[in-house]
Amino acid sequence: MFKRLGRQTVQLPSAPSILAYAGIAGQKEGEGPLRERFDYLSEDSYFGEKTWEKAESHMIKQCFALACDRAGLAPSSLDYIFAGDLLNQCVSSSFALKDSRAPYYGIYGACSTMAESLSLAAMMVDGGYAATACAVTGSHFCSAERQYRFPLEYGGQRPPTSQWTVTGAGAVILGTGGAGLRITHVTTGAITDAGITDANNMGAAMAPAAYNTLKVHFSDTGRSPADYDAIFTGDLGALGHDILQTLFDRDGVRLGANYMDCGVLIYDLTTQDVHAGGSGCGCSACVLGAHILKAMEKGVWNRILFAATGALMSPTSSQQGDSIPGICHAVVIEKEGA
Amino acid sequence: MFKRLGRQTVQLPSAPSILAYAGIAGQKEGEGPLRERFDYLSEDSYFGEKTWEKAESHMIKQCFALACDRAGLAPSSLDYIFAGDLLNQCVSSSFALKDSRAPYYGIYGACSTMAESLSLAAMMVDGGYAATACAVTGSHFCSAERQYRFPLEYGGQRPPTSQWTVTGAGAVILGTGGAGLRITHVTTGAITDAGITDANNMGAAMAPAAYNTLKVHFSDTGRSPADYDAIFTGDLGALGHDILQTLFDRDGVRLGANYMDCGVLIYDLTTQDVHAGGSGCGCSACVLGAHILKAMEKGVWNRILFAATGALMSPTSSQQGDSIPGICHAVVIEKEGA
Repeated sequence: MFKRLGRQTVQLPSAPSILAYAGIAGQKEGEGPLRERFDYLSEDSYFGEKTWEKAESHMIKQCFALACDRAGLAPSSLDYIFAGDLLNQCVSSSFALKDSRAPYYGIYGACSTMAESLSLAAMMVDGGYAATACAVTGSHFCSAERQYRFPLEYGGQRPPTSQWTVTGAGAVILGTGGAGLRITHVTTGAITDAGITDANNMGAAMAPAAYNTLKVHFSDTGRSPADYDAIFTGDLGALGHDILQTLFDRDGVRLGANYMDCGVLIYDLTTQDVHAGGSGCGCSACVLGAHILKAMEKGVWNRILFAATGALMSPTSSQQGDSIPGICHAVVIEKEGA
Repeated sequence: MFKRLGRQTVQLPSAPSILAYAGIAGQKEGEGPLRERFDYLSEDSYFGEKTWEKAESHMIKQCFALACDRAGLAPSSLDYIFAGDLLNQCVSSSFALKDSRAPYYGIYGACSTMAESLSLAAMMVDGGYAATACAVTGSHFCSAERQYRFPLEYGGQRPPTSQWTVTGAGAVILGTGGAGLRITHVTTGAITDAGITDANNMGAAMAPAAYNTLKVHFSDTGRSPADYDAIFTGDLGALGHDILQTLFDRDGVRLGANYMDCGVLIYDLTTQDVHAGGSGCGCSACVLGAHILKAMEKGVWNRILFAATGALMSPTSSQQGDSIPGICHAVVIEKEGA
């Protein structure tokens, strides 16, 4: 059976279930509006480790373990793990999951990783290749800052368009059977390069990718924004959120008040000194795992579109004058029987 | 239908076809034993670009374009591209493919990328999620050397256990229908950490992962090495090749003369000053795309096991004293009607 629905979307006939999920974060995230939602908040930026890279790995491992525990699954019994992160060579994921003994696919989608891993895990379960599959990712402000920007001790000034890398992780375990939340559609993004070269303006670089993916999603499915109780982009921040609305406004399509961005939701933009909002793989991951899925279970939303966004650049590509290509992957999550 | 065959293997009922493939490389690879096999050899290490990072991207783009052309497909008509590389944030792949306009999944499997991308592409086609899917990757000696080791100008001495990063790329396009070569099974590796910390001895770090994946493949499928006309590991090099044989010898399993390693095949180890052999994402990718698949079409081998290997470390993890976790993914390729 060919499951393709239009150019970039597939419909999942079996609608894999979300068996369990978790979302954890750091101190700053625990001071934001979602403070009550997280499964765990670390007061210690090192998470008990000696370096921030190991802290990031520890956090991902902890979040993964929590999700496995809630699903009642031994990590080694998982049929696949899809994981990735922002560190060079995705080491926080591979070190976090190296003792799991489960079949492992490393992925790289920058801050779109949660949607990419969820997409692939969902297709693996739907296609009969796996009975269970885990999607997990995270990011850490301190490890990202020193890898992408400056040593923290330098105390560099950040322009108003910049975003704050979220210290957080999210994990979702999919499977057959189960009840409650299900993944029904996956829309895979194509790389979109709008020619933005300012690495301190990721929202502007990623918004055109989000626009393209959402637009093709609506076209492929014959749906409109009104068909969703909520639409979440990954980490466009306040600026990217507005750009995306403007792009749709031009087409005469109203995203409306149900359109939110995880990078805006996670911090209080007026008091937390994060400029345009949160970013990083962990941003949409921990907002999904700590907030969105919980709210869906409570009936706040019954059908949502989760569209994580990523910037596919590196410090080297920026230093060599390259633009910042963006990408956005989207998944539809529905509450069964709602 | 549940397609899982044992713990880590899936059987692909539709056996997706290899519609087209390509393998290109650099000057040094063109001086090795496979010189006549490559589709293109660049005399210029810059591939006409200004930096080695852009050269790597150019090479991947060129290889991808060649495979698309041979398949008679417009790049934008592909249902998925799976790609990744060794550069930080996988930028050579994303910049190579950013103009393709095809749904794109970035992956990170270090030097196992060709097998990982091929595995995922094969399951997407088999499962009805895609009519066509491309797996593509590459690596470049100069960009890898300066990112992972030293500036080339430094002229550092390399220990005898070290390997030479291949300048090369490979691309394979899978689809339904077609005739000739097909992918029948996929075995996904779990991360294996044997505690090796010497970043100049990747063969020793990756051989235990290859051992685990091949062993589970034989167990899952009920097959033995004798069921394959040839078994190829990715880039264990001469040392890792011998370690893998020794590990199987201990179990009383003979890998035999049909067991080869792409890192050994690509260079003349006695004259080309590459020490233990070739490595890098491009190693197994260009050996597959330029040599193995062509030889299969000619009937040299009818059923092979392609098992690319990767080391999931970074310079930072090594500097922080971490070990080098390895991974190995394997796919079975068969010649139809043979």
